Amino acid sequence: MYRRELLGPGSVDKVSYMSSIVDDAEIFRYVIIALIAHVNELERGGIISGDVAGRIRDALRDVWRGGYDPGKLVGYEDVHEYIEAELIRRLGSIGGWIGIGRSRNDHVATAIRLRLRRALLDLMLITLRLREVALNKAVEVYDKVIIGSTHRQPAQVTTLGHYMLYLDDLSRDFLSELMHVYGLVNKSPLGSGPLAGTMVGIDRFREAVELGFDGVVDNTIYATGSRYFVISAASAIVNYLVEVGRFINNLEMWLMPQLNYVSADPSHLATSSIMPHKRNPATLEVFRARIGEAVGHLVAMYSILRPVESGYQLDLQELTRHMWSIVKIALEGLLIFMDFINGIKVNEDGVKESLGKYVVTAAEYAEAVAMRERRPFRDVYNEVARELRSGVKVGLDVNESLMKPVHGSSNPRQVIDDARARLNEVSELMTKVNLMVSKLDEVENKLLTT
Amino acid sequence: MYRRELLGPGSVDKVSYMSSIVDDAEIFRYVIIALIAHVNELERGGIISGDVAGRIRDALRDVWRGGYDPGKLVGYEDVHEYIEAELIRRLGSIGGWIGIGRSRNDHVATAIRLRLRRALLDLMLITLRLREVALNKAVEVYDKVIIGSTHRQPAQVTTLGHYMLYLDDLSRDFLSELMHVYGLVNKSPLGSGPLAGTMVGIDRFREAVELGFDGVVDNTIYATGSRYFVISAASAIVNYLVEVGRFINNLEMWLMPQLNYVSADPSHLATSSIMPHKRNPATLEVFRARIGEAVGHLVAMYSILRPVESGYQLDLQELTRHMWSIVKIALEGLLIFMDFINGIKVNEDGVKESLGKYVVTAAEYAEAVAMRERRPFRDVYNEVARELRSGVKVGLDVNESLMKPVHGSSNPRQVIDDARARLNEVSELMTKVNLMVSKLDEVENKLLTT
Amino acid sequence: MYRRELLGPGSVDKVSYMSSIVDDAEIFRYVIIALIAHVNELERGGIISGDVAGRIRDALRDVWRGGYDPGKLVGYEDVHEYIEAELIRRLGSIGGWIGIGRSRNDHVATAIRLRLRRALLDLMLITLRLREVALNKAVEVYDKVIIGSTHRQPAQVTTLGHYMLYLDDLSRDFLSELMHVYGLVNKSPLGSGPLAGTMVGIDRFREAVELGFDGVVDNTIYATGSRYFVISAASAIVNYLVEVGRFINNLEMWLMPQLNYVSADPSHLATSSIMPHKRNPATLEVFRARIGEAVGHLVAMYSILRPVESGYQLDLQELTRHMWSIVKIALEGLLIFMDFINGIKVNEDGVKESLGKYVVTAAEYAEAVAMRERRPFRDVYNEVARELRSGVKVGLDVNESLMKPVHGSSNPRQVIDDARARLNEVSELMTKVNLMVSKLDEVENKLLTT
Amino acid sequence: MYRRELLGPGSVDKVSYMSSIVDDAEIFRYVIIALIAHVNELERGGIISGDVAGRIRDALRDVWRGGYDPGKLVGYEDVHEYIEAELIRRLGSIGGWIGIGRSRNDHVATAIRLRLRRALLDLMLITLRLREVALNKAVEVYDKVIIGSTHRQPAQVTTLGHYMLYLDDLSRDFLSELMHVYGLVNKSPLGSGPLAGTMVGIDRFREAVELGFDGVVDNTIYATGSRYFVISAASAIVNYLVEVGRFINNLEMWLMPQLNYVSADPSHLATSSIMPHKRNPATLEVFRARIGEAVGHLVAMYSILRPVESGYQLDLQELTRHMWSIVKIALEGLLIFMDFINGIKVNEDGVKESLGKYVVTAAEYAEAVAMRERRPFRDVYNEVARELRSGVKVGLDVNESLMKPVHGSSNPRQVIDDARARLNEVSELMTKVNLMVSKLDEVENKLLTT
Repeated sequence: MYRRELLGPGSVDKVSYMSSIVDDAEIFRYVIIALIAHVNELERGGIISGDVAGRIRDALRDVWRGGYDPGKLVGYEDVHEYIEAELIRRLGSIGGWIGIGRSRNDHVATAIRLRLRRALLDLMLITLRLREVALNKAVEVYDKVIIGSTHRQPAQVTTLGHYMLYLDDLSRDFLSELMHVYGLVNKSPLGSGPLAGTMVGIDRFREAVELGFDGVVDNTIYATGSRYFVISAASAIVNYLVEVGRFINNLEMWLMPQLNYVSADPSHLATSSIMPHKRNPATLEVFRARIGEAVGHLVAMYSILRPVESGYQLDLQELTRHMWSIVKIALEGLLIFMDFINGIKVNEDGVKESLGKYVVTAAEYAEAVAMRERRPFRDVYNEVARELRSGVKVGLDVNESLMKPVHGSSNPRQVIDDARARLNEVSELMTKVNLMVSKLDEVENKLLTT
Repeated sequence: MYRRELLGPGSVDKVSYMSSIVDDAEIFRYVIIALIAHVNELERGGIISGDVAGRIRDALRDVWRGGYDPGKLVGYEDVHEYIEAELIRRLGSIGGWIGIGRSRNDHVATAIRLRLRRALLDLMLITLRLREVALNKAVEVYDKVIIGSTHRQPAQVTTLGHYMLYLDDLSRDFLSELMHVYGLVNKSPLGSGPLAGTMVGIDRFREAVELGFDGVVDNTIYATGSRYFVISAASAIVNYLVEVGRFINNLEMWLMPQLNYVSADPSHLATSSIMPHKRNPATLEVFRARIGEAVGHLVAMYSILRPVESGYQLDLQELTRHMWSIVKIALEGLLIFMDFINGIKVNEDGVKESLGKYVVTAAEYAEAVAMRERRPFRDVYNEVARELRSGVKVGLDVNESLMKPVHGSSNPRQVIDDARARLNEVSELMTKVNLMVSKLDEVENKLLTT
Repeated sequence: MYRRELLGPGSVDKVSYMSSIVDDAEIFRYVIIALIAHVNELERGGIISGDVAGRIRDALRDVWRGGYDPGKLVGYEDVHEYIEAELIRRLGSIGGWIGIGRSRNDHVATAIRLRLRRALLDLMLITLRLREVALNKAVEVYDKVIIGSTHRQPAQVTTLGHYMLYLDDLSRDFLSELMHVYGLVNKSPLGSGPLAGTMVGIDRFREAVELGFDGVVDNTIYATGSRYFVISAASAIVNYLVEVGRFINNLEMWLMPQLNYVSADPSHLATSSIMPHKRNPATLEVFRARIGEAVGHLVAMYSILRPVESGYQLDLQELTRHMWSIVKIALEGLLIFMDFINGIKVNEDGVKESLGKYVVTAAEYAEAVAMRERRPFRDVYNEVARELRSGVKVGLDVNESLMKPVHGSSNPRQVIDDARARLNEVSELMTKVNLMVSKLDEVENKLLTT
Repeated sequence: MYRRELLGPGSVDKVSYMSSIVDDAEIFRYVIIALIAHVNELERGGIISGDVAGRIRDALRDVWRGGYDPGKLVGYEDVHEYIEAELIRRLGSIGGWIGIGRSRNDHVATAIRLRLRRALLDLMLITLRLREVALNKAVEVYDKVIIGSTHRQPAQVTTLGHYMLYLDDLSRDFLSELMHVYGLVNKSPLGSGPLAGTMVGIDRFREAVELGFDGVVDNTIYATGSRYFVISAASAIVNYLVEVGRFINNLEMWLMPQLNYVSADPSHLATSSIMPHKRNPATLEVFRARIGEAVGHLVAMYSILRPVESGYQLDLQELTRHMWSIVKIALEGLLIFMDFINGIKVNEDGVKESLGKYVVTAAEYAEAVAMRERRPFRDVYNEVARELRSGVKVGLDVNESLMKPVHGSSNPRQVIDDARARLNEVSELMTKVNLMVSKLDEVENKLLTT
């Protein structure tokens, strides 16, 4: 591909190199939306007449309906330049009114925020659906024993339902992060100009309301130059994915034939081109790897930001792509993961075999003995340890061990009750998020259609 | 240092290698606090008698008062093992009661949370103080012109006060992140045992209240094995620091003799051993580099977590250290930075010289002309661009340019009003955070003293 | 895009999720090449007849000529599966001979190595061309004064030619890295099967020679499971780019109007949509950001590898893409950068203005005085520092300062001589690398054509 | 710790903040060595008299013998400032001659290179020792069957000896990287001054020889400002560690009771405070985590470098620490790892049990049948796959499967022969590296002692 440039004299295509026209496909819709709101505001402020405003709005909606084919837009620096050129082509010089009271700096920040808030809502929905799947699975397997491990060594008996609640707890904390970050993201930078504001009397609050923002980013330098809201959203997602990846490690471990604690739906498994006996947990491996990739995208963002001063630089244009990649990795991967969880089954024979071989209730036994005999725990522990070393298997009955009295434990009764309570919580949150989605749909559709 | 091992046969000290006894100095106080609360709960639950509980508590407080000298504790795996050994040494076998109803897994998670919530409060306080400094500076320099840049090129005129509000906006968002993360962190894992809970009837909620936690981490696997709360806190801090680092890039730029827009207190500058004319912005460079280091610590955390399953593994022990490093980098660096901001002065001659040379109000001029003459903006823009190219300097008057009507802009009137309003906000938040600190002081002192 | 899956019940497309068919476009050519060599070896070893071998070879070449359109290959796991299916479709069951004596694990490793060695050669060529450009520029501007800075403060006078040699020194070290890594990469994994080898008597050395490899990767587990050669190549490239990025920081600084030390070809500069006076160094900013992205790709690789055991896992499939991204960033960016360097000019007025204002030869002056008057250097230094503080400008003449006697210094005579000597070195290396390229062309064309 | 500063007005200690006096303990020895060589060169060049040179040398050696206690050096910027101050304190103003013809920039670069080349030699030695241990283990267990896995699923039979050769192959490639990087590192920056060289006629080549360098870093800007040699060394080490970490994943997997393929020396295992049955692979977990930390240190370096221009900035001071951390992690961890490998034993019962249960020679069987019956491989494969699915266990005999004819395979005969040949290679390399060490000892001792 580079052979020609490498060998011949040929000129390098600098215009495409610095252009964001391809990446801008992600934000095309939102650039149009922001521009229409801007035109409305210019009209309300008396900067342009109702007639001019109307013609520009129509043209913008027309451009929107025409779609966006980056492949045909070679030569444009970015979507903003392209749209303005289209307006002038269609409307003549009055199209050039679009440039007043704004800059690419505040408008691109707006489009990113508009797109990102939708992505955050998508993530909320999918996380809620994952919680639903995990909680329903918890209800299904609330008492199916599995051997919990630490240090990849059998540690304590518990149930797969208990592990499902673990996944739910993690996902719940993530949801609270998403909600918080949504508040950070859903603010309007419009009216901030390139950096210090514009001479045009734009009512930034009125405009924000029209776009469904919860408020404005106050300071105009912050509104145009900072990407704090992007890296905050990115790292919130990455943090969750990294912890989900750890649970994938568990699943892959449990799928090992030597443990055989769970079985997966065959659609998640791949075979080998040469080893006909293999059943590889392929989807999980891909998701786990993509989580690693997401960490890379986050680091790319940090690396990109490091040399940049607080004002806008073209480096920032290169940052945004990584945000969308992280969102895509999360949405796709969580869909796959949810499907995997949905199809998981406890393999009781596999678990039974291990229970027969490994001591996993010695801690519970030592605690029970210490309480019953009122002897200091460490004395009992040492005694138990000695017995185990001399080959005597000691331990509490598995079912008794499960019935721990503490809140949040392996106790199957608790697991099923908690799962049901959480299902209600999820259902309420789902309603709430769907309402937020509907409101944005309404706001955006109103702007995009006459 | 390794020469001996490299050349001789010598045995490697595996015990120190796997020990966390040195790092545990960070959490010693909180390990003791958690243990005392645990003893109280064992007493309340009737597991141990009031007499035994009292003797263990006294011994724990005694150990606490004796201090923690990791250098002398070679051979211990960690602070937990050391304390239990001390109890047994002092009290005989009844000291061994300390081991019931708990595991190092839930107790280390508790100690990390206790320590981390204090760190978060410290960060809130320091961020509030930084805001105070920035806002007072904004009041001081609300109308001192500085040339705002994008792409490291002069872009628009604004004031240093406007930049101070930018810093305040960023810091305000960070504070809201810290508050949110505090809620994630300040929950009790106690009673979760190694993974699946304990056989001992511990009232996890009662214990949480005693420790000043806002609630419990419900699921015991999540409570013991997850470090989601740690990476959430870490990335919240790193995200802020990275954006602060970008402002350091501005400051270093403004300090260049060729710009000379600001001057710094000499205590922040270093000289050269061979170039007597140099004035190097040394403290800023160190802070900027340490921010880069903080990114590294975060990546270390992600890298550490990747291969670990959801249960506890010793890898997690190695994770915590990076949290404290990030906290230290933030606290020290923000103190330095705040002092720098406090001492910054606008160098009016430097700014004036640039204003005389570079066109920085052409955008404002084009906007003003377009509005005044009601001509499409792009037409005016192109005209202005042509004039500039032909060497004619066009532009609005600097003061007129500053007086932008939009919210959050360079407008000095707005800057000073906003700064004052924000100073009130900061003062209220300061009161609130100090109250949180006092409450924790009370909770912890009650446990640590008879 | 995910709306349907998010809201409806819809099944998730797991097959595409785990497929590498899209990414495999990068290695299609090399997969075919490896398969043809494999068929040759099976024939030589008597595993398949000359007739069967001939028909499979023909079919493989046919598939190759048909091109690779991933968009049409939905449902295939990867390029290997697709090609085997094509062979069986075209030849019937004898196409199934292709599967013996190999695995996707050794064949994908082979294809990556075949592709990567070409990428490394491309990088060598482009680095040599960059050196040529920098050295020719050094000859052109060997005596054009520029003010060297440390801490972003004027430090010493030197010439742009001297800086060009700095770029050459860095690039030369990188070339030596590339040559070294090439040796690591250019070894054959063929014959290693999935992990432990194959039952088929493949002569791995003979096959390696046929493919233009310098040898074999001895151990078959290492050959199939390790990606050490990939991360070594990746980090070699990233390390260079990061240091090149630092020089971009210099260039951006020198382009600041307040310094105005150099001017760039206008094709590298972008204008502002609202600020007609701006000249933004757009291509450099994009390249610098992409270097940050390259760091992210490297970290993605590390993150992907962390949880993977030494044998092949599908996670490794996800790793390779980041290698090609890094290569693309480097090739494209270095082309742009080379063009930038080629067009750079010293702006003598800008430099002169700074020389008139800032003391930059005080170190040289102090050294000269100390030597001339035989007084301890620090005494002289302190005296000079005192004079500077009191406003007296002291310093050596600029031209005298340049004429440093030490090897590799700013001395223009040295700069031009060194540049010329290096141009010869580059020319010889270029011949050598082109020879390597020709040899590979020959090897590959022989396999790909009858 | 920060409470005082957080609450009170207190001044922040900026001097300590920007000082490297603590970190400089790592390079104290090498700073002295470089200074003595510098004094020698000043004497040879006639800049200072033999008498002055002698007195400064004596004082420097005296300072060296006095040791370096950073705790007592509060107030110094760095070791260079401290040493010069000591010289002047001891010798009066003639001590100030030390400052001529040098800068901290070239001298700190020299000290880092002197220290780093020793670290690289240490790493070579330890890697050679690890190879020796692995190869001796390969000889010991050349025919001890172990089940090789891919996707964490049983894949093919092989031997632990074969895995040991995998480790050897990886380590051998690492050694070749280390040797290469050594060449990059072992060059002299002396005489480069702050950036552009010095006015003093220093013979850089003569000085380089005296210090045991293989040559000079030609360009003085490159010599003082670049840290390419540091990140090259750092990433070479990290790349190896990351791949070693993957083998730790294997070891931890094999140690799982459900597999029980290997057993480790008990000194590497830790028990649980509450679960007396646990045997946690503690040292491996710590090493694996520290490898994750090493990735973080590398990213810290990249992050630190990103905003820095090509000249020296104080940010670079903060970079070096991460290099030493990586070296420490590698040296300590590899010692531990080597000890682990030394003590590893195959648990034949565990392996036998798995062999009885899982099909792991089906690929070999299919290949053998295809060759024997001259039927297309895929036909046979499909047949075998069908049989396996219907519950019929098919497979080759384990020993027959091991006897693969290909180079580098599981074949025990090959394993033992290769291991022995490699032991000879290691022994020769050991001699070579020890010779390099002796030469440096000699060079340094000559400078450090009269």
